[in-house]
Amino acid sequence: MHNNELDSFIAAGILNRMNPKGWKAFITCPSDTVTSMNGVTIHAEQPLEFSSKADAVLIGSGSKTRDIARDTDLLARIQLDPARQMIGAQCSGTLLLSKLGQLGDLPACTDLTTKPWVIEAGVKVLDQPFYANGNIATADGCLASQYLAAWMLMRAGTREDAEAAVHYVAPVGQKEEYVAQAIGSVIDYLPNSIATSAA
Amino acid sequence: MHNNELDSFIAAGILNRMNPKGWKAFITCPSDTVTSMNGVTIHAEQPLEFSSKADAVLIGSGSKTRDIARDTDLLARIQLDPARQMIGAQCSGTLLLSKLGQLGDLPACTDLTTKPWVIEAGVKVLDQPFYANGNIATADGCLASQYLAAWMLMRAGTREDAEAAVHYVAPVGQKEEYVAQAIGSVIDYLPNSIATSAA
Repeated sequence: MHNNELDSFIAAGILNRMNPKGWKAFITCPSDTVTSMNGVTIHAEQPLEFSSKADAVLIGSGSKTRDIARDTDLLARIQLDPARQMIGAQCSGTLLLSKLGQLGDLPACTDLTTKPWVIEAGVKVLDQPFYANGNIATADGCLASQYLAAWMLMRAGTREDAEAAVHYVAPVGQKEEYVAQAIGSVIDYLPNSIATSAA
Repeated sequence: MHNNELDSFIAAGILNRMNPKGWKAFITCPSDTVTSMNGVTIHAEQPLEFSSKADAVLIGSGSKTRDIARDTDLLARIQLDPARQMIGAQCSGTLLLSKLGQLGDLPACTDLTTKPWVIEAGVKVLDQPFYANGNIATADGCLASQYLAAWMLMRAGTREDAEAAVHYVAPVGQKEEYVAQAIGSVIDYLPNSIATSAA
């Protein structure tokens, strides 16, 4: 899949801070093993089809996303339902989200390399790290994966959960700053009820 | 090894931005496959012994580091030479660096959980994201792995290399801020010649 490890592992690592509360993030892959764009081979924890059962799905990026965007057999294995799932994508993953028909009229975040292809797919590309509307979120920049995780934590957990998870992974001596930046990057895109109770 | 994926993959991902200039970061493991603390199985790109041949070595963290710190057979497979290698460690990896005899009298960064064990090993623990002296660096907080990578890039590449790599992985709309924070976190710990020419 030639994925970018940063996207997937940062978000999964942050979400797995919630293991004690019953959350579990799995790495899903189209085959039993996949080799990343940097040459690291990993084993799928779940097949791609698991995405239809999950409460939340994040689509990372990689160097082969344009090929995948044309692979209708592979895309057909990803059945998403934003009525009951939180769905996020980042960087070139946004192109797949668009090809999966999930963006509709929403604007989205993506990287500079993928931008022309996302625009060609009819999507307005935003120049900001994170955007969400309802159950659909996009982010850009590998390290913005922390914002997708924070958004999910605030939506399905609490603001305290999101703050604690980001606090844990942030550099020592810069933790308050990282937490404020993560919450600040996502809070405008939460339903009013959550944003208000969290403020 | 029950490693923390964030440490290893963030640093490796940033360093591999230098592939076009001939750099290559490898994930090394004590066995052919290892399963992370979050359940992800990965294949070693190089055996642990590769650490003696590398120009630079980073020791990540994990939930089993205290066991590894007592595993003298495993530690004996890691032969480091700071006279010719840049060596970094983060979070509980700092405990291993100490057990490997590489910290000497240097203070170091480590996480709150590992802190008592590092203090017990006779090391002064700093409350900051990054510290380096000569060829030995330590960092704390999973996301501080970007500072270890930036330090290596500034030492063995150029300031422009470090800025470009961090710029690439940083969130859109916050890239300048991330670059300034990364450079600012490491520049005081570079040899005067580099810090001066880079300023």
